Amino acid sequence: MYPESLKNLIESFKMLPGVGEKTAERMAFFLINEEQERTDFFAESIKKAKEKIRKCTVCNGITDKEVCDICSNDLRNKKVLCVVEDPRSIFLFERLGSYNGEYHVLDGLISPLEGIDPDEIGIDKLVKRVQNDKFDEIIIAVKPSIEGETTALYIKKIIEGMKIKVTRIASGIPIGTDIEYIDTMTLERALTDRKEIE
Amino acid sequence: MYPESLKNLIESFKMLPGVGEKTAERMAFFLINEEQERTDFFAESIKKAKEKIRKCTVCNGITDKEVCDICSNDLRNKKVLCVVEDPRSIFLFERLGSYNGEYHVLDGLISPLEGIDPDEIGIDKLVKRVQNDKFDEIIIAVKPSIEGETTALYIKKIIEGMKIKVTRIASGIPIGTDIEYIDTMTLERALTDRKEIE
Repeated sequence: MYPESLKNLIESFKMLPGVGEKTAERMAFFLINEEQERTDFFAESIKKAKEKIRKCTVCNGITDKEVCDICSNDLRNKKVLCVVEDPRSIFLFERLGSYNGEYHVLDGLISPLEGIDPDEIGIDKLVKRVQNDKFDEIIIAVKPSIEGETTALYIKKIIEGMKIKVTRIASGIPIGTDIEYIDTMTLERALTDRKEIE
Repeated sequence: MYPESLKNLIESFKMLPGVGEKTAERMAFFLINEEQERTDFFAESIKKAKEKIRKCTVCNGITDKEVCDICSNDLRNKKVLCVVEDPRSIFLFERLGSYNGEYHVLDGLISPLEGIDPDEIGIDKLVKRVQNDKFDEIIIAVKPSIEGETTALYIKKIIEGMKIKVTRIASGIPIGTDIEYIDTMTLERALTDRKEIE
């Protein structure tokens, strides 16, 4: 019903997460009414990003260089390593402005249920890095879920004996959230991990 | 903070209606992980759509030809013309499958408040078409708003004397909606336009 070229554009938008038929149509109609310059920029951005973005050979994060800006920055604290499950997490932590250490990105999390083993998420690469570099602390900053817990415990176990402090970011009730809306597992954790008020 | 090429891709997604920073980031990260083939298709679709899509010289609708498929279809009912405010409306009516007449797309609606005059929305082109083709009925299918009403009344007035029936699609309570959620203007209209049950 739509002209072929418009149909393809709608199909393209439908690839994106959270974009259904109606939204894709709205986006496509919007875009064909944009200035040529802007649609060219859009098309070029897709090509360039796909072409240039790759994994940092050190931390496995996202970069357009061989080694990313964080790994090649000598002003970072080389004694602390934050282990995340997704390259996006790096940018979230960076936005805080309070963390100045290094990062390491796993290729996801260990999942006994889905049959994802430790060797599939690149833990060997992490271990090698930890053996070479002299970290004082490894902060595990993965999602608090069964998979996250499994992964954290596995890393703790494998690093044991290397005399490195292994920590885990806190779980609990998000700031500003009413307790009545919190699931029991989170509430249980918040209670267990309670801290003395000083 | 993000690599340049990723930043540009995020900026591109932010052009789109309803897409903010977070959504754009999610889309960009998703896309760079897609297969090369699919990202190429996406980029090409944008270029091709922008290049090929143009306005039908007859109805002002969207097409990749000189005259759109609807206007060049001899099996359509050439006696009825449906006037819409946006090319997208055509596809919505077509999806119903019950309308088989012609279409004409205005370049928006008359708006005394925003200073949009009848000559800015291409009413002259509509009038010329109505003078040449022999329509029995003109269905005005624009949004029920002050601008829509103004536009409908203006068209009615200008066509008066041409012995063509001018109708307006019905306004009222959407099917399945509780009356308590309906605004007073719609309820007022639903009451005024009540129909005898036969």
